[in-house]
Amino acid sequence: MIFSDDYFMDQALKEAVRALEKDEVPIGAVIVIKDKIIARGYNQVELLNDATAHAEIIALTAAFNAMGAKYLPDATIYITIEPCTMCCGALYWSKIGRVVYGGKDLKHGGISLHPHENLLHPKTLLTSGIKDSECISLLKNFFKAKR
Amino acid sequence: MIFSDDYFMDQALKEAVRALEKDEVPIGAVIVIKDKIIARGYNQVELLNDATAHAEIIALTAAFNAMGAKYLPDATIYITIEPCTMCCGALYWSKIGRVVYGGKDLKHGGISLHPHENLLHPKTLLTSGIKDSECISLLKNFFKAKR
Repeated sequence: MIFSDDYFMDQALKEAVRALEKDEVPIGAVIVIKDKIIARGYNQVELLNDATAHAEIIALTAAFNAMGAKYLPDATIYITIEPCTMCCGALYWSKIGRVVYGGKDLKHGGISLHPHENLLHPKTLLTSGIKDSECISLLKNFFKAKR
Repeated sequence: MIFSDDYFMDQALKEAVRALEKDEVPIGAVIVIKDKIIARGYNQVELLNDATAHAEIIALTAAFNAMGAKYLPDATIYITIEPCTMCCGALYWSKIGRVVYGGKDLKHGGISLHPHENLLHPKTLLTSGIKDSECISLLKNFFKAKR
């Protein structure tokens, strides 16, 4: 690996900032194969009027299209915030090789909510806490400003 | 309610047959508001090369578009087979009023796999077993023919 997890999490953070600029909950994701970003996504729930239009889902759909493949065993997804149960399920089906997330989501995170089981694919590697304070600050400041 | 759950499950079964005709795993769904079908979907994992293109996800996206709304509290979704963890998560976010499914999925079903918690929204009503033998037969015969 030439680029680090920090480098790609910065790219996911850029996607989160794009969401923020559109007044969406600021969560972003990028999908990487062999040090190359093949797909990007940011939360578009409001824009698309679709409660399921999470960053991960948008990035996954883009990645399936980019690769012409329905499984992504060689890919890593970088997500600024822990994926929810739905997104963990989507990542399960994608058979993605690795999941890297920044900040924990104690309320909706599929990993935090299910500490005794693995919602991801058994072969998927998991890393967390990459640039977590930056990822969480972005989210906290968004909700603070909404109040 | 003028039409019965059996009536709408038959409509979901029609969607499942459409999937079958395209050599997709035969699972179908319809979304209903006030006795009117507002969205339909069938499994399109192979066609779209997208491991997450389940009948429920396709029907939900169509329903959000049809209603111009990101929540569906007045809607009922009829699904031929129990929704997986991902689809339960999507249904959670949609705040759909009611989920009706046909056959159980003991391997991937989000309800069967999580008997001690509710992956759906707390306000979502749940009914199962509607036309379950027809729904399961369709699936079993598909996999039998594949062997």
